[in-house]
Amino acid sequence: ATFNLLLLPGDGIGVETMVEVERIIDFFNRSGRATFNTQSDLVGGAAYDAHGVAITDAAMDKAQKADAVIFGSVGGPKWADVPYAVRPEAGLLRLRKDLGLFANLRPAICYPALADASSLKRELVEGLDIMIVRELTGGVYFCEPKEIVTLENGEKRAIDTQIYTTSEIERIAKAAFDLARKRGNKVHSAEKHNVMRTGVLWKEVVTEVHRSYAPDVQLEHILADNCAMQLVRNPKQFDVIVTDNLFGDVLSDEAAMATGSLGMLPSASLGAVDAATGKRKALYEPVHGSAPDIAGKGLANPIATIASFGMALRYSCDMGAEADLLDQAIAGVLAAGYRTGDIMQSGMKQVGTAEMGGAILDELKKL
Amino acid sequence: ATFNLLLLPGDGIGVETMVEVERIIDFFNRSGRATFNTQSDLVGGAAYDAHGVAITDAAMDKAQKADAVIFGSVGGPKWADVPYAVRPEAGLLRLRKDLGLFANLRPAICYPALADASSLKRELVEGLDIMIVRELTGGVYFCEPKEIVTLENGEKRAIDTQIYTTSEIERIAKAAFDLARKRGNKVHSAEKHNVMRTGVLWKEVVTEVHRSYAPDVQLEHILADNCAMQLVRNPKQFDVIVTDNLFGDVLSDEAAMATGSLGMLPSASLGAVDAATGKRKALYEPVHGSAPDIAGKGLANPIATIASFGMALRYSCDMGAEADLLDQAIAGVLAAGYRTGDIMQSGMKQVGTAEMGGAILDELKKL
Ligand SMILES: CC(C)[C@H](C(=O)O)[C@@H](O)C(=O)O
Ligand SMILES: CC(C)[C@H](C(=O)O)[C@@H](O)C(=O)O
Repeated sequence: ATFNLLLLPGDGIGVETMVEVERIIDFFNRSGRATFNTQSDLVGGAAYDAHGVAITDAAMDKAQKADAVIFGSVGGPKWADVPYAVRPEAGLLRLRKDLGLFANLRPAICYPALADASSLKRELVEGLDIMIVRELTGGVYFCEPKEIVTLENGEKRAIDTQIYTTSEIERIAKAAFDLARKRGNKVHSAEKHNVMRTGVLWKEVVTEVHRSYAPDVQLEHILADNCAMQLVRNPKQFDVIVTDNLFGDVLSDEAAMATGSLGMLPSASLGAVDAATGKRKALYEPVHGSAPDIAGKGLANPIATIASFGMALRYSCDMGAEADLLDQAIAGVLAAGYRTGDIMQSGMKQVGTAEMGGAILDELKKL
Repeated sequence: ATFNLLLLPGDGIGVETMVEVERIIDFFNRSGRATFNTQSDLVGGAAYDAHGVAITDAAMDKAQKADAVIFGSVGGPKWADVPYAVRPEAGLLRLRKDLGLFANLRPAICYPALADASSLKRELVEGLDIMIVRELTGGVYFCEPKEIVTLENGEKRAIDTQIYTTSEIERIAKAAFDLARKRGNKVHSAEKHNVMRTGVLWKEVVTEVHRSYAPDVQLEHILADNCAMQLVRNPKQFDVIVTDNLFGDVLSDEAAMATGSLGMLPSASLGAVDAATGKRKALYEPVHGSAPDIAGKGLANPIATIASFGMALRYSCDMGAEADLLDQAIAGVLAAGYRTGDIMQSGMKQVGTAEMGGAILDELKKL
């Protein structure tokens, strides 16, 4: 099969880690398992510097036509003062919104070799495997009014709005329950129904959707603040967590850090399946950010971006077997002791971005 | 001096832990250090059961007149289905709003005796002492529109609104910087300025307020999602964290759990100082909730509620020396090995609510 990929390395370490993804793509192309046609474009600060916007219409057009977008990272101190509408993050937000990528899948997995790297005690994270399903096209991220106005008394007044409708909650709930069926059959739905009306509706709709999945999939409602606690207290109690855009942002970062494997974690952002073509829009990106402090130095861990390509194989290319191979290759280099600075442990072999990418490639060739 | 206290035990373990506070108050009264006049009233589910509301106007009136309100906890499965407007939490929210308690101080302290009880590795939490300053009367908790409507197509649409004005941010920022001056001179301001307009204004106003505190107090801006990560990665990097109502809810619970001392942590919610009287409204409550699973069994840890009374001594009664004594007494019983179930460690002496309260009282008498 042939797949069209759009690579958007973005800013900071995204640029370096994407190079390693290209080597992996190249390997799959030459192995004859599939044909990946790749295009690249700018996003974030890089797009702003070149075009004055965080992503051009032309790049958006390529993204619309691609089978999958592989995204690096955006932002950095260089663009701290650019206007709000064209700040680096606006490129990513436009991609999510315009491609309709409502389901953000964020695995929080503890790689066994890295259990000791977690801040949490080893027994709490060893074997940890959570999937956070974050709503990605609604909520406070996108709803209007969203503005700052100057009042008559000279003060400013800022407003953000969170709106959720029944159907928006339904589709993300279904995504979560479907995933849970293929995993541990347990979903926690996190919201603040005790103070937010969107939380009340969230709880109500998730409960309703659950009826079609009961009794084999279990549902528990949890307040978002309690969820933040429980992710520290005992993260292994979770299988799938479904939550809104803003809570998902905070809770998934917390969970990712708890695993000790932050630099390793990929994510997938998926749209609805088109009834006519059977396809869906998708974007894959590492959970980590642009890490301006180490950018351009060849030190970044490319695993999260490579694993994001792995998720693309699985979710956009129906190449689950190849995705497994890639996961095995990553596990292999870790077992062999290769570590970038972010996951360095004593007695291991510290390598840079290119060496880590190369090691994974070598491992792949052996499989 | 004479102080009028309103005790609102509320629901669940709040009822049992407040009894222990009353014994401490009694001790201070008899020692002649001050005269505390106490009144009690219902709040939360208890008020709903008796009066059909989460707090009566009469109780609100007492709260308005009190020098300090000592609050237990509210809520429980019994009231899961009461109407939104009279749900147990509505009582607490009305107190916060009507008393103007905009500054919520939540210490996240690791009691040395409990460092091993944390999920985090000992070296990450030993000596941990963070103060989270949460805005408590604004943001998504209170702003309108906040409603659920049924659309023409039969779907529901829920909306919550977050509004912050310059002056609301200014006063909480000042509270944070003032506190930092008495502590480690470092403030982290957490928001999402990359996606929220309230975050943009928050960052701008906090930066402006900081000018009067620089260079002795240091300010760092941090994204709320990154803050959630850093509280796991390395909590000791923080001194004071100032943030909005919703992020404060989630981040303070996460931080409290990270300390390993959740059942120990008090909080203070303070209003503005009245220029005429020099006084301010205040409410003190444990960070933990009503813990329905252990309520009524005499198992709850009373320390957080007792320590909340300690914060009342400090912030509402100008009795810092007595507050220190109470803190010493708590440290003393922990050193002596007394533990309620939530903080039990092997080799220690497991006790119930009343025994723990009694032990603190005995310790106090010795000081
Ligand atoms: C870069 C930023 C806009 C983004 C978000 O807030 O969603 C990031 O934090 C994430 O979680 O993907
Ligand atoms: C009980 C609830 C309304 C409250 C809140 O959300 O503020 C609680 O979680 C807290 O943090 O004090």
